[in-house]
Order: sequence, then C-alpha cells, then structure tokens
Amino acid sequence: MRIAVYPGSFDPITNGHLDIIERASRVYEKLVVGVLSNASKTPLFSAEKRVEMIRLVTKHLDNVEVDTFTGLLVDFAASKNATVIVKGLRTVADFEYEFQMALLNKALNPEYETMFMMTNTKYSYISSSMVKELAGFHGDLTGLVPCEIIETIEEKYK
Amino acid sequence: MRIAVYPGSFDPITNGHLDIIERASRVYEKLVVGVLSNASKTPLFSAEKRVEMIRLVTKHLDNVEVDTFTGLLVDFAASKNATVIVKGLRTVADFEYEFQMALLNKALNPEYETMFMMTNTKYSYISSSMVKELAGFHGDLTGLVPCEIIETIEEKYK
Amino acid sequence: MRIAVYPGSFDPITNGHLDIIERASRVYEKLVVGVLSNASKTPLFSAEKRVEMIRLVTKHLDNVEVDTFTGLLVDFAASKNATVIVKGLRTVADFEYEFQMALLNKALNPEYETMFMMTNTKYSYISSSMVKELAGFHGDLTGLVPCEIIETIEEKYK
Amino acid sequence: MRIAVYPGSFDPITNGHLDIIERASRVYEKLVVGVLSNASKTPLFSAEKRVEMIRLVTKHLDNVEVDTFTGLLVDFAASKNATVIVKGLRTVADFEYEFQMALLNKALNPEYETMFMMTNTKYSYISSSMVKELAGFHGDLTGLVPCEIIETIEEKYK
Amino acid sequence: MRIAVYPGSFDPITNGHLDIIERASRVYEKLVVGVLSNASKTPLFSAEKRVEMIRLVTKHLDNVEVDTFTGLLVDFAASKNATVIVKGLRTVADFEYEFQMALLNKALNPEYETMFMMTNTKYSYISSSMVKELAGFHGDLTGLVPCEIIETIEEKYK
Amino acid sequence: MRIAVYPGSFDPITNGHLDIIERASRVYEKLVVGVLSNASKTPLFSAEKRVEMIRLVTKHLDNVEVDTFTGLLVDFAASKNATVIVKGLRTVADFEYEFQMALLNKALNPEYETMFMMTNTKYSYISSSMVKELAGFHGDLTGLVPCEIIETIEEKYK
Repeated sequence: MRIAVYPGSFDPITNGHLDIIERASRVYEKLVVGVLSNASKTPLFSAEKRVEMIRLVTKHLDNVEVDTFTGLLVDFAASKNATVIVKGLRTVADFEYEFQMALLNKALNPEYETMFMMTNTKYSYISSSMVKELAGFHGDLTGLVPCEIIETIEEKYK
Repeated sequence: MRIAVYPGSFDPITNGHLDIIERASRVYEKLVVGVLSNASKTPLFSAEKRVEMIRLVTKHLDNVEVDTFTGLLVDFAASKNATVIVKGLRTVADFEYEFQMALLNKALNPEYETMFMMTNTKYSYISSSMVKELAGFHGDLTGLVPCEIIETIEEKYK
Repeated sequence: MRIAVYPGSFDPITNGHLDIIERASRVYEKLVVGVLSNASKTPLFSAEKRVEMIRLVTKHLDNVEVDTFTGLLVDFAASKNATVIVKGLRTVADFEYEFQMALLNKALNPEYETMFMMTNTKYSYISSSMVKELAGFHGDLTGLVPCEIIETIEEKYK
Repeated sequence: MRIAVYPGSFDPITNGHLDIIERASRVYEKLVVGVLSNASKTPLFSAEKRVEMIRLVTKHLDNVEVDTFTGLLVDFAASKNATVIVKGLRTVADFEYEFQMALLNKALNPEYETMFMMTNTKYSYISSSMVKELAGFHGDLTGLVPCEIIETIEEKYK
Repeated sequence: MRIAVYPGSFDPITNGHLDIIERASRVYEKLVVGVLSNASKTPLFSAEKRVEMIRLVTKHLDNVEVDTFTGLLVDFAASKNATVIVKGLRTVADFEYEFQMALLNKALNPEYETMFMMTNTKYSYISSSMVKELAGFHGDLTGLVPCEIIETIEEKYK
Repeated sequence: MRIAVYPGSFDPITNGHLDIIERASRVYEKLVVGVLSNASKTPLFSAEKRVEMIRLVTKHLDNVEVDTFTGLLVDFAASKNATVIVKGLRTVADFEYEFQMALLNKALNPEYETMFMMTNTKYSYISSSMVKELAGFHGDLTGLVPCEIIETIEEKYK
C-alpha cells in the first residue's frame, strides 16, 4: 500500500490545503496529514486544535488520517510507513523553497520521494498568513477557508 | 492499481529522464513512458527508435512500459487506464510551463492529476537538446545519457 | 481623455485577452486593441480576420476600438493619441519579457506609460498557441476562447 | 473622474516610490498616496511623519493627495472613491507577492483593478529597508531618497 | 596571468555587451572576446564583420583581444590559455540558462570557472535581437549600440 | 595583484561556502573571507568563533585570509585593497537579492565589481539556517558542513 504524508502548519487550514488533500487522497491509497508542532513558533491555534479543524473538514475522506509531529519530517513519515511526501506549489518562490527541502529530505533519507501538486488556480492567492491578516481586519473569509471553521477563526479576533 | 504516465519527446532519453523513470516506478504500481510522436517536428530519432532506446535502458524495471502516442496526452493516459501524469521539474522555466500544461490537462479532463518530481541536481543541467548540441561538436556524452545508447547517438553525428 | 492601447497578435483572441479588454475598458476612457500585422511571421488568421473576430466578441463594449498596426508600437499609440499601453501578465516569463519591452518603449518615447494587469487566474494557462495546438488535435475549445469564434477556429483545422 | 490609490508603508519614501507617484499622477486624474499605519509593526517614522515627508516631496504634483489608512486597502480605496490600485514592480519576488495581493483584493471587491507599473531601472535596487540599513552605517543616501528628506533620516541614526 | 574569455554571438554588439567588456577587462589581466561562428544559424553579420565591429569599439582597451570560434567553448578557452569564462546576466531567464551552461562546461572540463556579472541596469532591456527588430522598423538606435556601428547596422536594413 | 572579498555570515560555514572559497581562491590571487559581525542579529556562533572555524577548514588554501567586519562591505573591501566582491548564487531568489546588493554596492562605490559563481549543484540545498534547523533536531550533518566542525555545531544543541 502506497502511503503518503502531506505536512504543513495548517494554522489554519485553507481551501487551498483542502483541495490538495482531496486530490492527493485519490492518488494514494492512504494520506496522512501531518500537522507540524514547532516549539519555536507561536501559532494562532494549538496543534491539537489544528488537527481537530482538519479532521472536521476532511471527514468525508475515508483514507485520510490527521496527526501532529515534531522533529524531522522523514522520521514522521517513517513512523507512518509512508514513502511519499506530498507538497502543493503555488508560486516560483514556493517551488524554490520546496525544491531545497525535497533535496534535503532526499539526502537525509533517499527512500522518500517528494511529489508536488500544483495548487488549483482558484486558490493560488490563499495562504494561512493572509487568512489571519484578513481576519484581523474582520474581512470576509468566505471562499478562503472551509465554511465549517470560519466561526472558529473569527472568534480568535474578537 | 495506480497507473502513471510519464510523457516526453525523449529525443534521446537522458540520465535525467532515466532517474525520473526509476524513481517514479517505485511510487506507482505501473509506469507507462509515453513517447510523443509529433508530426510537426523533425526529431533526431524516429519514435520507434526512441522507444527501442528507452526499452533498452529500462529493462531492469519490471513495471515500466514504453509506448508512442500522438494527439492529446489525456487521451493517451485514458487508453492506458492511467490517472496520474508524472513530470520532472528542473528550473523555474520548467515549473511555469508545466504548471500551464497541468492546468490545461486538468481543464480537458479533471480526472487526471499531474504529479511533479524534482530532477536530481546531478542531472539538472542535462536536456535532450544540449545532448544533441554537444554530440554535434563530438563532445563526450558520458554521464549525460545512459552508456548503452552513447554509440547510437554518436553514430548520427558521424 | 485617457486613451490606452492594448497590443497583441490575437491569433486568435482568447478568453484571457477578452478578460483584459473588458477590465481595461473600465479603467480607461477609450481602449484601442492593436492587432500586430507582422510581415515576418505567418499567422493562422490574417490581420483583417483577427480584427473581425475581436470586433465580434467586444461589440458589447462601447469604448473599445480595434485596429491593425505594423512597425513600432509607440508610433501606433501616437497615431491613436494614446498615452498608455496595457499589457496582461500571466507568468514570471511574461513579466521579464514585458518588463524589457516596457523599458524599450519608454526609451523610444518617455511619454508612454505601460500599465500591467494580472490575468484572471481562471485564464492563466490559456495562450493563443495552446489554443491552436489543441485545435490541431480537435480538442474542445469551450472555455478557452469566446464561443462566437470556436467554429471559425475549428474550420481552419478540418 | 478616474481616481487611483498608491498604497505602501513609505518608511521612508524613496526615489523609486517618487518616480511611480510622478508617473502615475500623469496617467490618472487623481492619485491618492495611502500610507499604511500598521499597528503590529514598529516603523522608523510615525505614519504622520511619513505623510509629511511625502507631502513635502510631492508638492509639485497638483493631483496628488496623501493620507494614512489602517485596515483593508479596499475599504480605504472606497473611502476615496478610487477604483484603481497602483503598485510598482521591481523584481520577480515583487511580482509574485503583488499578484497574490491583487487576486485577494479582487476577491474581496471585484470592482477594483490593480494596475502595475515597472520601477525605473535607475531605482530598481532601492527599497525602504535598504535605505534604513545604509543610514544605520552612516552611508551616503544621495540618489536613493529625495534630497529634501535626507537630513530627517540621518537625524534618526545619530 | 589570469585570462578570461567572454563568449557570445554579438550580432551585433550592444552597449550592454560593451559595458561587460569594459568592466571585465579591469578584473582580469587579459580578456578574450569570443565571437561564436555557428554554422546552423544565419547571422545578420558575418563572424568577421562582428569581430571587426567589436575591435572598433574596444580599441581603447589594451588588454582585450577579439577572435572567432566554432565548436565547444571549453576548447576555445583552452586554445587561449584562459581559465575563466565571463557571462553577463540580465534576467532570471538568463540566470537559469547560464546556470545550466556553466554546469555543462564544468562537467566537460572542471578546470574552468564561469564568473557572472550583472548587466548595468541602464542596459538591461537591450539585446541584439531587439536591436535588429528595432532597426528593421527604422527606429533610433542611439544609446542601444555603440555610436560607431549605428550606420553599419542601419545600412543592413535599407 | 587582484584581491577579492567573499562576504557572508557563515553561521556556520557550510560545504557550499567552502566550495565557493576553494574555487574563487583559484581565480583570484588573494581571497579575503569577510565574516559579517552584525550587531542587530543574534548569531549561533560569535564572529570570532566563526572566523576560527573557517580558518580551520581553509588551512590548505595558502591565498585565503579570514577576517571579521562591521558596517559597509565596500569599506571592508577598501581596507583590504580588494576590488572584486565574490558571491555564490543558488536560486532565483538569491539572484534577485544579490543583484540588488551588487547595484547598491556599485552605486556606493563604482570601483568595485561583484562577480557571481554558481553554487555546485551538490550543495545547492544547503544553507546555514537549514544546517541549524537540522542540528536542532539532532539530524546527521555529514556532507552538509566540513567534517572538522560537525562536533562544534552539535555541541551547541546538546
């Protein structure tokens, strides 16, 4: 069975992330969404809350599992028996950064392949940080994040 | 079974192409290398010869099939029961071109996903056209193309 | 009155071009679509036919004029009393090329400003050459070019 | 009347910014320079001081207004009856970032068009942060910022 | 003695090329301008005429030699006892292409280093092909190419 | 004598940096590695420790000197009688940033030329910040930094 890992901060998950999850879940037999719990950054939502939100919006996808991880991505992938890492690309800047990360992960463990998917153009301008900036100005989040979590995000900025 | 198609001109196949084939053949259960037979361009090698060379250098890979196609890639993928298209990325220019092709293929048939792999940096400067230019100057092709086909290429430039 | 020129080959006009025309016609008081008649290239459609197709699909836009030109863009702009040149940007490659052309036009005549608009992401993968390639394979052009001209294009590839 | 907004931090205004203001003020009937007053960042100059400096160096331009804003750009543009947002582009990185912002602004309010101008190559290497870094080393600011404000900036680093 | 080679088509030499030659001639003890005589392309000027024009505009530079070459650049560099290849960069597209060529040359002969210089922004929009296109429209070449060769170019388009 | 300066933070030096030092030391008669001691940033290693580590790994290179500097790079270069600044390029993002820095340095002092070298593809994914991130997770640093300093880095993260 081909198991793939889709890692990220997902602080919070956007419609761009969800689109990748839906499409990748059709390409691999199992997709594990890995929520990075990075001690050195202060996220808007705790890793647990981020996992909860992703589970909520992916509950229609049978072969998707959501979990947190700390440390090296290749170690997380190994713990899930995954051999593929999935990343979404939106821009040239993404491409260059992810290219370097893929090479590093390949150097750390040649068994893993990183497979890239192009973000749906409909969502190409959406990032978690833009969502947070917009929410800070009480802007309308419709279309940017799954509707089930809009209220949760707005709550944070009241 | 997940079947993927890896399309290209392969005129001739390079070590960069072969690296993608080897890596992709481990990620998908079956990989079909599709050799584009484009009536409007004059290739160095006929489509049949290109297929023959790819078969020669991939004979150690059990789940790899090589075939020619004309017309739309999505039609070729359908004829092979493939749902994934594999492309290699070397540069930002590749990225932008392939991004547009992936969007076009998605528009033509939303069932297909294009998955991108980063070319091994060792081979990032190799392209079929550079191989041909170098061969035209009788330069040394070692390391650029599989050694089994070096003589065949050199023959063309005698 | 601010008059702008939107130059291009439009061989044929795509939905991406039409989107720029519609949006630019709201920003400037008059928009002149300039169809380049380049003696050194062999277009699919004659300049006259390209003008006719653009007029057909822009007839709902009162302040849009369509005309052909040869020679330097700045001379065409001068003949139309325009002081602004409008260009659409899709990719980094577009950006770099258009940046150089804008600098050249500015050097030739500092009175002209080139204003760039981002292509709607919905149309970001569409180019005239892709439309022609697809038409050559008898692919479906719906959504890529205005529906009024699909038949005219298909006719060429029969 | 076509009113355009040119937003930025302008901390401080550079010769690159001034060049865009001068050129854009010739393309639109009125140009409103919008100085972003962002509570979450600590600028070198207060928003009021930044407005004062821009007014000083644009006093020769009759149709230019300078004002501060907080919150969403589209709300500021609406309050000024503007329908066009003007941005300057220097690099591919600018292009990608601004592309995303333009798409976001378009999603928030489809009535607004973002029009991009290429920065004069003479000023392409100048940014407010480079000016501040250079001033911190007591480097010569001549040619980088309008001469009327050089002393004000140098004062900050004494 | 450090000898460097600056290769190109120079069909014709532009002010951008001349700027690189002048600057590189100060960095290396001897600079050999190598004019590529490529049998498969039809240049505007013969290789001999291109050499003649470069000699004319570089006669104030004592340590600059001009010569033609065919075949591999590394072979030409070896024949001149050069160990450095100089290239000018204008754009990201240049950067990617030259990066690949530098890697190829390094693979062919690890003794050679390619050193890149940024084109003066004043000349960043100038290329030989734009000069030819402009000359074809009888546009003004002042500032784009050395004044000594303007007449020679204009002659070609009469 | 041509003296070149290779500036950077080197916090810590990587195999990518060392490769540039080795190659540049063959192109220039003397190479001064300049370690930036930036008061506003908190490095992992003190400037003195960074100098010590670079000296350790470059002791086989006779014409390489290592020193710290604060303030403007052009002032440091002048103090070393250098007329060339050497920078390594890995990515398009590097290219754009370094292009701007080169222009700024040229504006501050036109006597200096910045010469760029392409990073060896083998090291193209390595940066000091990635090394630190990896070390923070107790990942294996072999191949990323010179083996003589691995222990020193690991010590910091115990």
